Amino acid sequence: MKKDITIIGAGLVGSLLAIILCKRGYKVKVFERRGDMRNENIAAGRSINLALSDRGIKALEEVGIMSDIRKICIPMHGRFIHNADGHSSFQPYGKEGQFINSVSRGELNKQLMTLAAAQGAEIYFHHKCEAIDWSTNTVTFETKEATLVSQKSDLIFGADGAFAASRLQHQLQHDRFQYEQYYIDYGYKELHIPPGKNDEFQLEKNALHIWPRGNYMLIALPNIDGSFTCTLFFPFEGEISFASLNTKEKVQSFFANQFADASNLMPTLIEDFFQNPTSSLVTVKCFPWIRANKFALIGDAAHAIVPFFGQGMNCGFEDCSVLSSLMDNHGEDWSTILSAFQELRKPDGDAIAELALNNFIEMRDKVADPKFLLQKKIEANLHQKHPDKWIPAYSMVTFRPDIRYSEALERGNKQEAIMQEIMQRGGINDNWESEFIEQLILAKLNAL
Amino acid sequence: MKKDITIIGAGLVGSLLAIILCKRGYKVKVFERRGDMRNENIAAGRSINLALSDRGIKALEEVGIMSDIRKICIPMHGRFIHNADGHSSFQPYGKEGQFINSVSRGELNKQLMTLAAAQGAEIYFHHKCEAIDWSTNTVTFETKEATLVSQKSDLIFGADGAFAASRLQHQLQHDRFQYEQYYIDYGYKELHIPPGKNDEFQLEKNALHIWPRGNYMLIALPNIDGSFTCTLFFPFEGEISFASLNTKEKVQSFFANQFADASNLMPTLIEDFFQNPTSSLVTVKCFPWIRANKFALIGDAAHAIVPFFGQGMNCGFEDCSVLSSLMDNHGEDWSTILSAFQELRKPDGDAIAELALNNFIEMRDKVADPKFLLQKKIEANLHQKHPDKWIPAYSMVTFRPDIRYSEALERGNKQEAIMQEIMQRGGINDNWESEFIEQLILAKLNAL
Repeated sequence: MKKDITIIGAGLVGSLLAIILCKRGYKVKVFERRGDMRNENIAAGRSINLALSDRGIKALEEVGIMSDIRKICIPMHGRFIHNADGHSSFQPYGKEGQFINSVSRGELNKQLMTLAAAQGAEIYFHHKCEAIDWSTNTVTFETKEATLVSQKSDLIFGADGAFAASRLQHQLQHDRFQYEQYYIDYGYKELHIPPGKNDEFQLEKNALHIWPRGNYMLIALPNIDGSFTCTLFFPFEGEISFASLNTKEKVQSFFANQFADASNLMPTLIEDFFQNPTSSLVTVKCFPWIRANKFALIGDAAHAIVPFFGQGMNCGFEDCSVLSSLMDNHGEDWSTILSAFQELRKPDGDAIAELALNNFIEMRDKVADPKFLLQKKIEANLHQKHPDKWIPAYSMVTFRPDIRYSEALERGNKQEAIMQEIMQRGGINDNWESEFIEQLILAKLNAL
Repeated sequence: MKKDITIIGAGLVGSLLAIILCKRGYKVKVFERRGDMRNENIAAGRSINLALSDRGIKALEEVGIMSDIRKICIPMHGRFIHNADGHSSFQPYGKEGQFINSVSRGELNKQLMTLAAAQGAEIYFHHKCEAIDWSTNTVTFETKEATLVSQKSDLIFGADGAFAASRLQHQLQHDRFQYEQYYIDYGYKELHIPPGKNDEFQLEKNALHIWPRGNYMLIALPNIDGSFTCTLFFPFEGEISFASLNTKEKVQSFFANQFADASNLMPTLIEDFFQNPTSSLVTVKCFPWIRANKFALIGDAAHAIVPFFGQGMNCGFEDCSVLSSLMDNHGEDWSTILSAFQELRKPDGDAIAELALNNFIEMRDKVADPKFLLQKKIEANLHQKHPDKWIPAYSMVTFRPDIRYSEALERGNKQEAIMQEIMQRGGINDNWESEFIEQLILAKLNAL
């Protein structure tokens, strides 16, 4: 008989998981701490727009809903760099025709919830996970009316995000639970560029905009209404920090100096800056993710990462895809499914966590460095000539779901070590396109 | 005016800290979760004997109590290795006259509590920390009689060990708290070798005994009554593990095969094995350790480590010594004292955590390897000829309190990288004492 399944959390991953499980004939109940964002105005102002890429798309396609989702996506073909000196440049993300997709977290989540409900998932809002009795697999929720509701089921998924209540319940009753939470010294704040006249985009539409400033950065991603959702990644403390930008005058003058072109397009800069919360950025690693055949953490609840590789959602969706293929292989043997799931996904979760932390330095600092840009050109060149031998790390992570994150990290590290040597060679600015450099790199790659 | 100070935990570090603070004229109250081990029979069977070495001794000498403590110490001059094939060998820990000291945790703790009380510290037993109100610096304790007691003070120290309740209270009310708990896959179990006829030691008295067996090990440390406290470090799961040794027959035959000489001296092996708990081994890292001028974590509560370098207590005592010297420098400026304390000690806590994890592999596996023993001989030789240039990592950590743990780790890593190269040279077995090898090593060291 098909198991009764409880999913804690109706976010992106919880909703997609509900769709997958309903399509396979399971009876699924989803419990969400917050209200229904389709009817209620959920407190916003802390969203970073999402970049849906090939791993996430693969998971959505497998379940037949990518055509629905594509309608709310805006392709971004590369990074549009706004340098401090006023000049700008464009760096394609991959080869011709490769792109990532800007999508609003709220819009995507609403669509996924509606699709889950259409497949038969029962979604309960204002249900906050307060306790899990592991002996009977019963979750106790607190409702909006301060009543307690108990839900017993065969199988529970914890899809309740970086600060998962389900993970805490799991940890409380687990010997030798491995756990790490790591905060970077930077926070983020959502800002806004509205549409222009006739709802036109006021910056290049099909790009991810970056204002790299060494120690901090501003980014902007397009929305379908012609607006841009902007995010300032900024130190919490220090000379230039959220702590020091504490008056309207300081914010106004700082933006006018540092982000002139963007701040000209932000009529609500001051309101946004002081009304929107300053949010923190955490990496969470833990193990184990599962309990026998009865419970699994999935998505951010299992492996929260920082947003700088645009892979948080894509990784969570890939979790769902991997789980789905394990269901194909192992039928109702959930003990095998869940243990194979964590064995496969734990190293990949660790790998993307590391890649995401590294990418912050690339985005806020290196993308403005001519030497780094030359390195990217050399790598793109190599990739074009030897598409299987040399794949830039960004491309492996973003456009190659057939390459595991853990493999992408390992291959990327090897390639980076080679490029570090190559970039130190005298004359590289002149001979980078030569046959000699190409053969030298390939020889080094073969030797590893 | 001198602050009122609350110390949570009357363990080794809490008690020593109480002595130091009382001697400086502070009013100190210490609250301990358990009963008074001087009067009550505290549940035992999970103790690893301690190895008091120079960092700990320095702290005890500074406060004038080492002469008291020395009476319960047994010098251990090296490792006595009991190999699987029945032969044994002795590896000195350092130079002639250098040794570490076996001491019973219980006896040492009782002495320190008595000395703290003699200095005027008030110690309250059966007081379990349940809450801390940080706005008023008030700790609420639960007593044995299930009453709640509140203690308000100017300054609170959390000295309540690896699973510190004070740390949890600190974390609960702290944004962006960095936290990691990491368990190794091994547990430990206390076993016992009683004194022989006329209370004689049945193994060499002045040594730390090791039965290295690759994936696991048994150790034994002498007690002043002629007995040895033994500890089996063993995998939790797997073919040879606590999980698999689940009958008296299996335990008896396993010990007879693997630890023949030791098991002959263990009349209560079976009772000990099945009655004593299997304990886990955790590393805890966190940050920050302090709150303004009002609170600090110290000892295991700030930086719990695995026991394989024999440095857990020594590191905690060194914390007290560092804090004490900061009090010398900064008087009653506790804001400066505490922030300097964590700035100095955090990197050292991280370093000894790493060193301790690495040393497990050395103890359980490498000490039985002839190549490793040759490496140690080469290093000892170098150290004798160039005592300031080349100091084996073990010696830096154990016998050189003037070298910080973080420096010992860094220098040790460099030396190890050199030795790895040297040991791979053909002919090293024959020419290891040559002038050439000595000069080659020094040249490599200078080049780093």
